[in-house]
Amino acid sequence: MSEAGAVASGTSTAGRGGRPRYAYLGPAGTFTEAALRQVVTPDEAEYLPQTDVGAAIEAVRSGDADFAVVAIESTVEGGVTATLDSLAGGAPLVLLREVLVPVQFTLAGAPGVALSDVRRISAHPHAWVQCRRWLAHHLPGVVHVPATSNTAPAALLARRAADGEPVELGFDAALVPPAAVETYGLVPLAEHVADNPSAVTRFVVVGHPGQVPAPTGADKTTLVVHLPDNEAGALLAMLEQFAVRGVNLSRIESRPIGDALGRYSFSIDAEGHITDERVGEAIMGLHRRCPHVRFLGSYPRADAVAPTVHVGTADADFVGARDWLRAVREGSAT
Amino acid sequence: MSEAGAVASGTSTAGRGGRPRYAYLGPAGTFTEAALRQVVTPDEAEYLPQTDVGAAIEAVRSGDADFAVVAIESTVEGGVTATLDSLAGGAPLVLLREVLVPVQFTLAGAPGVALSDVRRISAHPHAWVQCRRWLAHHLPGVVHVPATSNTAPAALLARRAADGEPVELGFDAALVPPAAVETYGLVPLAEHVADNPSAVTRFVVVGHPGQVPAPTGADKTTLVVHLPDNEAGALLAMLEQFAVRGVNLSRIESRPIGDALGRYSFSIDAEGHITDERVGEAIMGLHRRCPHVRFLGSYPRADAVAPTVHVGTADADFVGARDWLRAVREGSAT
Amino acid sequence: MSEAGAVASGTSTAGRGGRPRYAYLGPAGTFTEAALRQVVTPDEAEYLPQTDVGAAIEAVRSGDADFAVVAIESTVEGGVTATLDSLAGGAPLVLLREVLVPVQFTLAGAPGVALSDVRRISAHPHAWVQCRRWLAHHLPGVVHVPATSNTAPAALLARRAADGEPVELGFDAALVPPAAVETYGLVPLAEHVADNPSAVTRFVVVGHPGQVPAPTGADKTTLVVHLPDNEAGALLAMLEQFAVRGVNLSRIESRPIGDALGRYSFSIDAEGHITDERVGEAIMGLHRRCPHVRFLGSYPRADAVAPTVHVGTADADFVGARDWLRAVREGSAT
Amino acid sequence: MSEAGAVASGTSTAGRGGRPRYAYLGPAGTFTEAALRQVVTPDEAEYLPQTDVGAAIEAVRSGDADFAVVAIESTVEGGVTATLDSLAGGAPLVLLREVLVPVQFTLAGAPGVALSDVRRISAHPHAWVQCRRWLAHHLPGVVHVPATSNTAPAALLARRAADGEPVELGFDAALVPPAAVETYGLVPLAEHVADNPSAVTRFVVVGHPGQVPAPTGADKTTLVVHLPDNEAGALLAMLEQFAVRGVNLSRIESRPIGDALGRYSFSIDAEGHITDERVGEAIMGLHRRCPHVRFLGSYPRADAVAPTVHVGTADADFVGARDWLRAVREGSAT
Repeated sequence: MSEAGAVASGTSTAGRGGRPRYAYLGPAGTFTEAALRQVVTPDEAEYLPQTDVGAAIEAVRSGDADFAVVAIESTVEGGVTATLDSLAGGAPLVLLREVLVPVQFTLAGAPGVALSDVRRISAHPHAWVQCRRWLAHHLPGVVHVPATSNTAPAALLARRAADGEPVELGFDAALVPPAAVETYGLVPLAEHVADNPSAVTRFVVVGHPGQVPAPTGADKTTLVVHLPDNEAGALLAMLEQFAVRGVNLSRIESRPIGDALGRYSFSIDAEGHITDERVGEAIMGLHRRCPHVRFLGSYPRADAVAPTVHVGTADADFVGARDWLRAVREGSAT
Repeated sequence: MSEAGAVASGTSTAGRGGRPRYAYLGPAGTFTEAALRQVVTPDEAEYLPQTDVGAAIEAVRSGDADFAVVAIESTVEGGVTATLDSLAGGAPLVLLREVLVPVQFTLAGAPGVALSDVRRISAHPHAWVQCRRWLAHHLPGVVHVPATSNTAPAALLARRAADGEPVELGFDAALVPPAAVETYGLVPLAEHVADNPSAVTRFVVVGHPGQVPAPTGADKTTLVVHLPDNEAGALLAMLEQFAVRGVNLSRIESRPIGDALGRYSFSIDAEGHITDERVGEAIMGLHRRCPHVRFLGSYPRADAVAPTVHVGTADADFVGARDWLRAVREGSAT
Repeated sequence: MSEAGAVASGTSTAGRGGRPRYAYLGPAGTFTEAALRQVVTPDEAEYLPQTDVGAAIEAVRSGDADFAVVAIESTVEGGVTATLDSLAGGAPLVLLREVLVPVQFTLAGAPGVALSDVRRISAHPHAWVQCRRWLAHHLPGVVHVPATSNTAPAALLARRAADGEPVELGFDAALVPPAAVETYGLVPLAEHVADNPSAVTRFVVVGHPGQVPAPTGADKTTLVVHLPDNEAGALLAMLEQFAVRGVNLSRIESRPIGDALGRYSFSIDAEGHITDERVGEAIMGLHRRCPHVRFLGSYPRADAVAPTVHVGTADADFVGARDWLRAVREGSAT
Repeated sequence: MSEAGAVASGTSTAGRGGRPRYAYLGPAGTFTEAALRQVVTPDEAEYLPQTDVGAAIEAVRSGDADFAVVAIESTVEGGVTATLDSLAGGAPLVLLREVLVPVQFTLAGAPGVALSDVRRISAHPHAWVQCRRWLAHHLPGVVHVPATSNTAPAALLARRAADGEPVELGFDAALVPPAAVETYGLVPLAEHVADNPSAVTRFVVVGHPGQVPAPTGADKTTLVVHLPDNEAGALLAMLEQFAVRGVNLSRIESRPIGDALGRYSFSIDAEGHITDERVGEAIMGLHRRCPHVRFLGSYPRADAVAPTVHVGTADADFVGARDWLRAVREGSAT
């Protein structure tokens, strides 16, 4: 059995009378689909392709899907604004899992085209940017034909191949996600095309709140926090809420709240699980001091790296301190 | 004389033998053009419209323009990624001035169309989002026809009006920047269309480094800072460099450095001018502790609000402390 | 009824079958006795004079007394080392109350001596220091005859007066606590003698641990804390435990731990009561991070000044945060 | 040659026409004299014994001595209040050097007394406290006869030995500083008597301000700092002035300012030399923010341990940052 069950078991809405339904940024062949395949196979779940990230998340809110798989961050572009903003507002949803997908492309050719023949490449502008050095080295002088998505040129190539006739595409090859090659029956000319071989996109599985999945020992917790207005040092004070409990942050991104310049919301990944004492006390501190805190889930880290636990911040230390405080208050501490 | 001279005087490259050349996100009628008009009139300068923010900035680097005017932040979208990233790398450029432009649209109709007749509106998706509530209230059920830019539907409306014939546009009206109405000879159906009446976009004038403009008493300083790797608390430590010198921050935004998840660059606006002692010492602290600091300019705040100067952080305090330290080191302090 | 009952009711050991017994630095007429009289009258309690502060505290530990009244701090000398050190180690004791006594002396003369005749004054060296300017102004050229305690010269004056004969004392007058005048039947030549009219000594009532007295809304909490070794910034980290919970400190004093140079214990007065949520969480933080924390009691402030409660640090904020965290962990937060 | 010249060379007042004059807590045979002997031999300097620490320091201020050697801190008692307070006020003096003396006693007997015969021991109360466990183990039941100084019983023993007649001393033996044995011609019964074998007292050489001695690479800097009134967190803010420049503290002690409860002066030893960039910037920060800062000297550490220099806080880092800031301000930074 795949991990679908594990994820589903953490929610109250999944798998109502059948296979769980996963909304994602489609169509078939996208990087998001590659992420989804890491989560659950097409046999185990219903794949519901969506036209954009917002639609995928709203499908969960509306009940049309049980889960959504969406990109949340990439090494190249940073936080995915649409995902962050969609999760920060609206009906509460939580992150249940993260998966990483390398940002590497396959250069797929039109039928009969060899790598040395390529003169014009269709690619989404983001894809082009991430392969520019590779292209300059291997195909100097090649021309960029902008595409509206990563899979759009794959579909065009596939259609022409199916038609069996030389319709003019306006390009000889396309940069597509590796998964699109099989999906669209393309001919790869070059694989692992990427300027930064360690570039990666982080995807998350989004679902309804419910009992939080049990900690694994290598978890992260995602939060949205608004800072108090007109407080110089509010960000510093917010970070100290984590630092004083020994909680490290692995990601922090600012987003405008949207009503005035200079007001920010922060999207944060903290090391540890909401059931960890130190994480709980830190976010209670945020709850007390900040006008708005939204919990977006605790879930296993894709890299399985356990957090550093600083002296005096293990669960047992908190429990011991509570026992001691109780004894002190009762006059029975020794 | 307009302000063009003031800006130009701060740089070594402007106005070479003629009017200064300003690159900006065109075409005529954009919000950026409205910002540019606040800086310099078309009589005083050469307007060089560009197809995107990156091209406008690169025009300065290449020498094709003396200055660029680009959006850097909006209340709705937050930091303009393309601007922030373009300024963070490449040949050094600096910000010389900021101007604010309200985010309000004019609903312009096709000839002969009344507000009550409007059924389909062309608008850039960002424009649509920012007027959604207004539209729901005034034109319930109206359909969105996506446009590729704010001025594209203005040009279509203008062409049809010029042609004098009923070419099918596919829409009855368009949300366009106010400046586009006159530029394209459009018919306004409603003005000041905006869900958030205080929404504003901040534009900056970008130029070559040179002698920094003199402080006005209400300035801001823009920086790009990379944090040390693998240091829990590196962001906290960075903020303390400002706090301990009494320097407030009015903006802080994270951007991924791009080579690995979890590595961030921070784009920062600090209150005060680089010639202020407290600002100087703070950014020397960053320079010492952080792997990369780029100065992006000190320039007057558009809102002309002077910074709070905390006890002991005025220039005279720093000068006095330096004199005292010298006396202490010489053994002559009293 | 006096306050004796109030204090006694907070402890399990006081008043066994009779009046509570109070050990204090005697003999009659000392400043400490003046403090003790503020706590309980001689009718209500048994006064047990001791030869030094350590003996008074040990009398409680041994059961020879129910309470001790000892000086803990003065504006002139700072912390009373003997008191701080005696409370920091040994069987746990707690502070139940504080009282303030002004540091002002009476200049008492030998029988028949007028102020203008005074040439030689007996005084404890501490008393002399605190009246030096007064003496220089009113009795220029007067000679100091050191005494071994504040009351010793009072006893000598009293004995000579009683004997009725001109035994040579070696001094004409003495600086004594105001209470000693009546006790020893002395003749006051000048009252309220003090260079600093606001000088004050803080005394505390020491008793056995037991149920902590209920908070009054204007309380302080006294602690002894050892810092972790070899941690640069350990003091900073300790102070942040208080700051992040919005707890102010009204006193902090260092004492060497005694086993090596550079290792310190800190004696701390925090604003608030151990039953306050913010105080409880702060000292649990100390308990987790520091090698040793001893609670020395929560008790009403003598000045009855209520602490500043910062935003988000009232008890209700902590309770609300705990409820919210529980809901978050259960998946039912809204 | 001894180190006298080195110390003297750092001042303008020493050795006026002859050997430098050193005031110290006498008489001969004290621990302070042992410290003085580490600094300069009796041949090289004039030893001026004083009755107390304050008198020794005042002798320098009045010109009666060139230097004073006084205890400033011990592992057992902590800061020497009289020294700290005397240096904190009055005409400025500075510390030029520190020396450490082990706190170990010699048990010296009256002529003809064996260790097993000892029944009553004369000792200063501080000495008694520091040898209590040793005495309980080796001489159970021995009686303490309090002495007014460490050397007083040595003098009594010496006189009786000199007189050659059995004057009744009231004690059989005395705890005296090791140096007193030879000075007074005593008979040692036990040496290295101490409960804590690592107990040590730190002495300092005090002189007039003048050119600060050159850094050795392992120096400390002593300061007196008053905190701003009514600022919760003032101590935290003061410590951050050091922390943000990477300066560690090796000692921090509070002393009341003396005019009201709750107002403190802090006596601080910082690692490093006043000529170090990081130390200079930190204490300029104190000078700007705190109502009073007094520099009490930079001098070599007795333990010769070099300070930890954190990343970005070496002198070269500060110089580099200053050069960079200058270039930034001139528009020539790259």
